[in-house]
Amino acid sequence: MLINCVAYQDGNKLSDIAIENVGDYLQHPDCFVWVALKDAEPSEMLKLQQQFDLHDLAVEDANHGHQRPKIEEYGNSLFVVVKTAEMIDGLLHVGELDVFVGKNYVLSVRNRSNQGFLGVRARCEQEPHQLRKGPAFVLYALMDAVVDRYFPVVEELEAELETIEEKIFEHGGQRLNIERLYELKREVVTMKHVVEPLMEAVGKLYGGRVPILCESTRDYFRDIGDHLHRINGLADAIRETIATAIQVNLSMVTIEENDVNKRLAAWAAIFAVATAFFGLWGMNFRYMPELNWTYGYPASIALVTGVCGYLYYRFRKSGWL
Amino acid sequence: MLINCVAYQDGNKLSDIAIENVGDYLQHPDCFVWVALKDAEPSEMLKLQQQFDLHDLAVEDANHGHQRPKIEEYGNSLFVVVKTAEMIDGLLHVGELDVFVGKNYVLSVRNRSNQGFLGVRARCEQEPHQLRKGPAFVLYALMDAVVDRYFPVVEELEAELETIEEKIFEHGGQRLNIERLYELKREVVTMKHVVEPLMEAVGKLYGGRVPILCESTRDYFRDIGDHLHRINGLADAIRETIATAIQVNLSMVTIEENDVNKRLAAWAAIFAVATAFFGLWGMNFRYMPELNWTYGYPASIALVTGVCGYLYYRFRKSGWL
Amino acid sequence: MLINCVAYQDGNKLSDIAIENVGDYLQHPDCFVWVALKDAEPSEMLKLQQQFDLHDLAVEDANHGHQRPKIEEYGNSLFVVVKTAEMIDGLLHVGELDVFVGKNYVLSVRNRSNQGFLGVRARCEQEPHQLRKGPAFVLYALMDAVVDRYFPVVEELEAELETIEEKIFEHGGQRLNIERLYELKREVVTMKHVVEPLMEAVGKLYGGRVPILCESTRDYFRDIGDHLHRINGLADAIRETIATAIQVNLSMVTIEENDVNKRLAAWAAIFAVATAFFGLWGMNFRYMPELNWTYGYPASIALVTGVCGYLYYRFRKSGWL
Amino acid sequence: MLINCVAYQDGNKLSDIAIENVGDYLQHPDCFVWVALKDAEPSEMLKLQQQFDLHDLAVEDANHGHQRPKIEEYGNSLFVVVKTAEMIDGLLHVGELDVFVGKNYVLSVRNRSNQGFLGVRARCEQEPHQLRKGPAFVLYALMDAVVDRYFPVVEELEAELETIEEKIFEHGGQRLNIERLYELKREVVTMKHVVEPLMEAVGKLYGGRVPILCESTRDYFRDIGDHLHRINGLADAIRETIATAIQVNLSMVTIEENDVNKRLAAWAAIFAVATAFFGLWGMNFRYMPELNWTYGYPASIALVTGVCGYLYYRFRKSGWL
Amino acid sequence: MLINCVAYQDGNKLSDIAIENVGDYLQHPDCFVWVALKDAEPSEMLKLQQQFDLHDLAVEDANHGHQRPKIEEYGNSLFVVVKTAEMIDGLLHVGELDVFVGKNYVLSVRNRSNQGFLGVRARCEQEPHQLRKGPAFVLYALMDAVVDRYFPVVEELEAELETIEEKIFEHGGQRLNIERLYELKREVVTMKHVVEPLMEAVGKLYGGRVPILCESTRDYFRDIGDHLHRINGLADAIRETIATAIQVNLSMVTIEENDVNKRLAAWAAIFAVATAFFGLWGMNFRYMPELNWTYGYPASIALVTGVCGYLYYRFRKSGWL
Repeated sequence: MLINCVAYQDGNKLSDIAIENVGDYLQHPDCFVWVALKDAEPSEMLKLQQQFDLHDLAVEDANHGHQRPKIEEYGNSLFVVVKTAEMIDGLLHVGELDVFVGKNYVLSVRNRSNQGFLGVRARCEQEPHQLRKGPAFVLYALMDAVVDRYFPVVEELEAELETIEEKIFEHGGQRLNIERLYELKREVVTMKHVVEPLMEAVGKLYGGRVPILCESTRDYFRDIGDHLHRINGLADAIRETIATAIQVNLSMVTIEENDVNKRLAAWAAIFAVATAFFGLWGMNFRYMPELNWTYGYPASIALVTGVCGYLYYRFRKSGWL
Repeated sequence: MLINCVAYQDGNKLSDIAIENVGDYLQHPDCFVWVALKDAEPSEMLKLQQQFDLHDLAVEDANHGHQRPKIEEYGNSLFVVVKTAEMIDGLLHVGELDVFVGKNYVLSVRNRSNQGFLGVRARCEQEPHQLRKGPAFVLYALMDAVVDRYFPVVEELEAELETIEEKIFEHGGQRLNIERLYELKREVVTMKHVVEPLMEAVGKLYGGRVPILCESTRDYFRDIGDHLHRINGLADAIRETIATAIQVNLSMVTIEENDVNKRLAAWAAIFAVATAFFGLWGMNFRYMPELNWTYGYPASIALVTGVCGYLYYRFRKSGWL
Repeated sequence: MLINCVAYQDGNKLSDIAIENVGDYLQHPDCFVWVALKDAEPSEMLKLQQQFDLHDLAVEDANHGHQRPKIEEYGNSLFVVVKTAEMIDGLLHVGELDVFVGKNYVLSVRNRSNQGFLGVRARCEQEPHQLRKGPAFVLYALMDAVVDRYFPVVEELEAELETIEEKIFEHGGQRLNIERLYELKREVVTMKHVVEPLMEAVGKLYGGRVPILCESTRDYFRDIGDHLHRINGLADAIRETIATAIQVNLSMVTIEENDVNKRLAAWAAIFAVATAFFGLWGMNFRYMPELNWTYGYPASIALVTGVCGYLYYRFRKSGWL
Repeated sequence: MLINCVAYQDGNKLSDIAIENVGDYLQHPDCFVWVALKDAEPSEMLKLQQQFDLHDLAVEDANHGHQRPKIEEYGNSLFVVVKTAEMIDGLLHVGELDVFVGKNYVLSVRNRSNQGFLGVRARCEQEPHQLRKGPAFVLYALMDAVVDRYFPVVEELEAELETIEEKIFEHGGQRLNIERLYELKREVVTMKHVVEPLMEAVGKLYGGRVPILCESTRDYFRDIGDHLHRINGLADAIRETIATAIQVNLSMVTIEENDVNKRLAAWAAIFAVATAFFGLWGMNFRYMPELNWTYGYPASIALVTGVCGYLYYRFRKSGWL
Repeated sequence: MLINCVAYQDGNKLSDIAIENVGDYLQHPDCFVWVALKDAEPSEMLKLQQQFDLHDLAVEDANHGHQRPKIEEYGNSLFVVVKTAEMIDGLLHVGELDVFVGKNYVLSVRNRSNQGFLGVRARCEQEPHQLRKGPAFVLYALMDAVVDRYFPVVEELEAELETIEEKIFEHGGQRLNIERLYELKREVVTMKHVVEPLMEAVGKLYGGRVPILCESTRDYFRDIGDHLHRINGLADAIRETIATAIQVNLSMVTIEENDVNKRLAAWAAIFAVATAFFGLWGMNFRYMPELNWTYGYPASIALVTGVCGYLYYRFRKSGWL
C-alpha cells in the first residue's frame, strides 16, 4: 500500500507525485524522490523495481520479509533491513522496515508494524539544511526513529526485571517468578536478534570503507551505532541478570524447601513425643503405680505439655519454627 | 550412480551426453558440462577424476564422505561440501552434497540424502540468461536449494520447542519434557554443525579476495551467506532458550517437590494431632474424669474433628493444601 | 551550573574569565580555556556550543546524559563520555562526566555525581610544565581522576565478596548470602558497563591512529588504559567468583537440607520405635504374661530406653545426629 | 632409542645409514635423511643436534617432553610437536611426537606412545613421486598418520556418550551415569588440548605466509587442517552434550526424588489413617456404644480397610503410587 | 633495598659498583649495568630514575606495585611487570617483579616475594656468550625463571584437584569437597590473572613489530610465550574441570539425599505397619475373639514380625535399604 511519494529539491518539498512520474524527477541532478509503502504487494514492488532499477535479490528479500537486520550494497545503492520493536500490552512485537537507497531516491517499505514514519518525514521537511544532504540523511532519519523506539522497549524489559526481582526473595510466588523470568528471557533474546546484527551492519556506514552515498552523514550513522551499542549493552546486562536470577530462584526454592522440611521435622518431633508418652501410659501392665495416683492424669498431661513446650521453645530458638 | 550429464552452451542445454564424451565439450570455450551423481562409487569417481582432472585430496574427501561443510580452492577449481538437512518423522537427517566446480564443468555428488536436485536443474534451464553465467551460477543454484531447505528444519525445531514450552509450567510431565529438551538440544547442536562452518566458508565467496570463478556471482553468494546468518541466528536463539528451559525445568521440579513436601507435612500434622489425642484418652489412669462422662466420647470426637478441621483450614489458607 | 572558567597561557593560569569573553582567548595561539560545568542546563550548553562551535550530536548527547562511555572525534575535536563511580553507604552510584576537547579549549560537564574535580584543576595548576601540553593533558588529568576513583569501588566490591565468602560455608544464613550475592552481581555488572566500553575507547588514544590532539600525551593515555585493564580484570575475577559462589551456595543449601533430612529421619526412627513398643504392650490380649510381672513395667521402660539409646548411639556415630 | 635412519634420493631409498655418516648425505643436493627415534635419551639428542645443527631451545623442548602441540620456525627449519592419542581399555592415552624438519632431513622422536610409524615410512617409500617432494611430505605423512588416529578416539568418546545417554532416562543408575559423564568430560577436555593448539599451528602451514619448506605441500597441510577442524567440531559437540547431560541428570535425580517423596507421602498417609482409627477405638471412654456391638470389631476393620483402599485408589490414579 | 649492582662488559662481569658510579659505565658502548632491588623505597627509586632516566609513569607504577603483568615501551626502553607465583603451605602467594630495560642497563625490582633471582645472575655469568647479547638476554633470563616457577604451582593445583576428585564420588564429605573446590577455583582464577595478561604482553616481543632491544632474542621470548600458552592451557583445563566438578558435586549431594529419603521412607513404612497392627489389637471392642486365644499374643507378634520382615526384604531387594 502506497503511503506517499514526494519529490524534494535542494532540501525542500516539490510536490506529491504519482509513482508513474518518478522517472521524470530522477533525471534532475539535485532532486530526489522519497517513496513510503506499507505491507507492499509483490505487484507494487515490481512496479517500483522497474522505476528505480532495484536488484532482484533485494526485492526478493523485501517481498519475503522476515529478514535479519542488514545493510547490503548493490552497486551504488544500498538495501537496508531494520527491525522495528514495540511493547504492546507487555508483549514484544517485532516488525520490519526495508529501505532502498540510491543516489536520488529513498524507498521505504514497512511490514507488520503499527509504528508510522510520517513524523520522520515531517521533521525532515522542517530542516531543509539537513534534508539537502539527500537520501542518506533520510535513511539516517528513518533508522534513528526506529532505533530511538528501542529504548522504551528495553526500559520496559528492565522494569519488568525489577518487578520480578522484588518478588524473588519473598516467600512463595517462585512458580510465577520463574515463568516470568522465562518469558522475559525470550523477549531479551528476541531483542538481541533485533539489535546485534544491526549494530554490526551500521558499523560499515561509519568505520572503515564507507559507501559513497553515506560519506557526508558518517557522524550521524556513528551516532546511531552508539545508540545501538548502548541498547545492546543494556540488553546484555538484562540477559546476564536473568541468568543469575534463575539460578538464584532455584536456590530460593531449595531454601524454602529446607524451611518446610525443618518445620515439618519440628512438628513431627513434638507430636511424636506426645504420642509416645500417651502410648507409654496406655500400656496394660498390671503394676504401673502412677496410673493409680489421684493426680496421675493431670500430672501426665502437664509433663507432656512441658516436654512439648520445651521442644517448641528449642525449635523456635534454632529457627526451625 | 550417474543421474545425468548434460552439456550447456550459452545458457542453453545442448544435449545429454555420455561421461566418455565429456572431454569433447570441455574444449569448447563457451560450453560447460554439468554432471550429477548420487552415492557415487569410487570407481565412478576415478573415471570422472580423469575426465575433469580433479585433485586427489578432493576426490578422496568425496569418497570418504562425512566431511564438514567447506569450500576449498584447488588451483582454479573449487571443491565444495555442503550438508543437506531434512526432518523425517520428527528426526533430523543429515546428508551431504559434494560439488566440484571448474571453469567449464560442475560435478555434484549427493550422498545419504533423499532430496533430489532435478528441480534445480529444471529451474536453471528455464533461465538461460542466468545459466549463461556458467558453473558458478549452477553452484549458487545448488547451494541455494540446500540452504533453503534448512528453513523448514529450523522451523520444525522451533515448533517442537514451543510445544515443550507450553508443557513446562504444567504439573507433571517434567520427565518427558526433559527428555524432549535433551533430544532437541542434540538436534540443534547437529544443525549448528551443518550451518556454522558453511557460513564461514561461504563468506570467502563474497567478502575479501573472491575466487575468479565466483567473481560475477558475488551478490548471489552474499545472499546465501545472509540466509545462513539468519538460520544460524535462529539456531542460536533456540539453543539459548533450551538451556534456559532446562534450568527452568529443574526449578519447576524442585517447586513441585516443594508442593508435595508441604502437602505431606500438612496431612502428617493433621493425622499426628488426631493420633495424639486418641492416645491421650487411651491412657489407663484410674482418675480420668472425662472418660466417665456420658458425652465424653462424642465430645472427644468433636474436639479432634474441630482441631483437625481448623488445621485443614489454616493449611488451606496458606496454600499448603 | 557554571563552576569555573579559566584561561591558561603556557601552562600558567591567566585569570578567571566570563563565558562571554571566551572568544577573545580562543584567538591567542598559545592560550587555552578550561570551563567546568555541573548538571548543565540545555540553555547553558547552547551558549557554550556557540562559543566553542561544538557538534550538534555531541551537545545533544551531553544534554540527554545516560550515554555509554565513549570517545568520539568530530573533526579535530574530541567528545569524551566517562562514567564516575562511587560507593555511598554500600551502594554503587554512577554519574557521568562529559568532556569536549578542542585545540584550545576543554569543556567538562559533570552530571549526577557528588565528586568534584577542583582538586584536578589545583594539581594541574601546580605543574605548569605538564599543563603546557594543553587540553589533552587536562583531558588526561580528568580521566585519570575518574579512573583512580574506580579502584576503591572495586576494592569495596571485593571486600563485600570476601565477607559473603566467610559466611557461605557456615550453617544458616544461606538466604541472606544469596540475596547479597545477587546484589553484588548486579553492581559488578554495572561496574563492567562503566569500565569496559571506556577501556575500548581509550585504546584509540594510544594504539593505532591517535587523534592529533592526543599525540603528545600518548603514554599518559596508555597508563589510563592500563589502569582500566587492571580494574576490568579485577571485576571479571569478582564476577566469575560470584557465579561460582552462587553455585556453591546452592550446593550448601542442598547439603544442609540433607543434614536436616537425616536428623529428621533419625529422630523419627527413635520415636517410631518407642511408639511401636508402647503400642505392643497396649494390646488387649488376655494372655500376655509380661503384663502381670511385678517388674514388667520398669523392665519395658528400660528395654525401650535401651533400644532408643542404642539407635541414638548408632545415628550419632554415623553422623546423622 | 634409534629406530632407523635412512637416506633418500629423488624419492627412492638409498640405504640405511649410521648416524655418524649422516653428514655425508646432507651434502648431496637432492638427498635427504629421515631419522626416527623413540623415547630418545638426551645424549642421543645431543649427537643428532650436532649432526643437524638443531636449535638449543627446540632440543631442550624435545628432551623435556610434555609440550603443547606447536609448529615453530627456527631459521629455515621447523620444529613440530604433535600429540598422539589412543584409547587403551577405554582410557585415553596421550603420547608425543616431536619432528625436526630441515631442507634435507627429517628427525622424528616419539615419546610415551605405543603407536609406531613404520607403516608411514613403508607407504611413503611406495610412492616415490610423492616422496620426491622431500622432508615436507614426510612431515605431512607423519602428521596425517597422527591425526587420522584421532578419529577412532573421538568416535569411541561418542560411543561412550551414547551408551550413557541410553541410561540417563532410566530409573536408578544416576550415580554411575554422573561418574561416567565426569570421566568422559575429562577425556574430552584432554582431547581438546591435543587438537585445538595443533589446529591453530597447522593453519600457519597453508594460510597466510607459509614457510618455504612447506610451500609445495600447502594443499596437503590444508587437508590436515580440515581434518582437525572436523575432529575439533566433533569434540565440541560432545563437550556441549555432556554439559547438557549433566544438567539433565540432575533434573532426573530430582524428579526421582520427587517420585520417592510422593510414594512416601502416600504410604505414610494410608498408615496414619489406619493408626488414627485404631487409636480412636482404643480410647477408654465408658460410653462408646460401638465397642459393645457384636459386629463392631469386624465393622471397624472393614471401615478402615475401605478408607485405606480408597486412599490407595486415589493415590494410584494421581500417579503417586 | 639494593641487592646488588654489577657492570658487565662483553658478557663478562667487570665488578660490583656503587649506584653513584653507574653513570660512568653507561658511557661505555659495550658495557651494561644490572641492578637488582628488593621492595624498593620510593627514595631509592628516585635515585635510580635519575641515573637511568626512567619514565615518570613507569616509576610510579613500580612504586605503587599491584600492577597487572604488562610490557610497555617508553621510547627505546622497556618497562616489564611480571607476577611471581609460589605455593606456600598449600596457599598461592603472588609477588611482583618489575624490570626496567634500556640499551645498556637492566633494573629489576622484586616486591612481596620470597623467591630470589641470584641463581639467575649466577647462571647468566656462567654463559658469557649468551650474556653478550645484552640486557634483553637478562630480561629473558629473569622472565624465564619467573615463568618456570609457574609450572610447580599449576601442578600443585592439578594435584589438589585430583585429590578432590577421588573423594567426589565417595559417600559423605561433600561439604568439604565443595569448600576445597571453591578455594581451588579462586586460586586458578588468580593464576589466570597472573598468566594471561603476560602471555598477551610477551606476544609483542616475538610476533609482529618487535622492540629493537629484543630483536636478537626473539626466539627466546617465543619460548617463554610457548611456556605461558602451556600453563594457560593447563589452567583452563583445571578451571573447566572444577566447574564440572561443582555441578557433579551438586548431583552427588542430591543423589545422596535421595538415598536418605528412600531409607527414611522404608523404615517409616516398617514401623508404621507395626504401630498400626499394635493399635488394631489395642482397640477396646468387646467381641474381638483373637484377644482371648491362648496364643493370640505370640501369634500377633509373629504376624507383625513377619510382615515387617517381608517389607524389609522387599526394600532391601529394591535397593532402598
